[in-house]
Amino acid sequence: MIEELWDIIQRSLQKCPWLEKQSLYDLLQALSSEIEEIKKALDEKDLDNLEEEIGDLIYDAFLVGVVAKRDYGINLDNSIKRVVKKISHRKPWLFWERRISLEEAEKIWRERKKKV
Amino acid sequence: MIEELWDIIQRSLQKCPWLEKQSLYDLLQALSSEIEEIKKALDEKDLDNLEEEIGDLIYDAFLVGVVAKRDYGINLDNSIKRVVKKISHRKPWLFWERRISLEEAEKIWRERKKKV
Repeated sequence: MIEELWDIIQRSLQKCPWLEKQSLYDLLQALSSEIEEIKKALDEKDLDNLEEEIGDLIYDAFLVGVVAKRDYGINLDNSIKRVVKKISHRKPWLFWERRISLEEAEKIWRERKKKV
Repeated sequence: MIEELWDIIQRSLQKCPWLEKQSLYDLLQALSSEIEEIKKALDEKDLDNLEEEIGDLIYDAFLVGVVAKRDYGINLDNSIKRVVKKISHRKPWLFWERRISLEEAEKIWRERKKKV
């Protein structure tokens, strides 16, 4: 499904006169509103609406990414590489066989966060 | 890169004692903070930081999605299918050869939004 999401985002970027007018700040505002919609769905225990809003959220987060690329020239592949690298470095236990305690995890995370 | 991002998210879900303790509300709060970090990077015109924070944002948005699935049983594939279907329906011009004006786009969007 990610491929279809990516396709619609690329089409929006290329062919949507509405998106053309949106600044990155506008899209961050839209994403904040989406967070509020999810909280509302949760508060109302409306799980069908929650399912829908989660899709909207992921779509809006990607729009923020592609518009940051469009307007500021950032490399979105690099953005994703960097977060994968950062999490892999700070949470090495994700690649361990054994499970670790929360205390141990937090200790490692704090140490590794300081170093980078 | 999306595959590597997805891999690290699945590992986090399976093996991270920190993530185990996070509620969906906690993760929505983390996502809101991420939005503020992006605004800060923009305000400071720090494009290297912007590139990094955009990765964090997309990672956090996916964490919201997988934890909504974990804690509320929503179907994340459906969430994405629904947003793709909704945008395709409301913005049919994304599939047209010709470009349309903002006014025409907004007219179609309003009409189609009412119907669903």
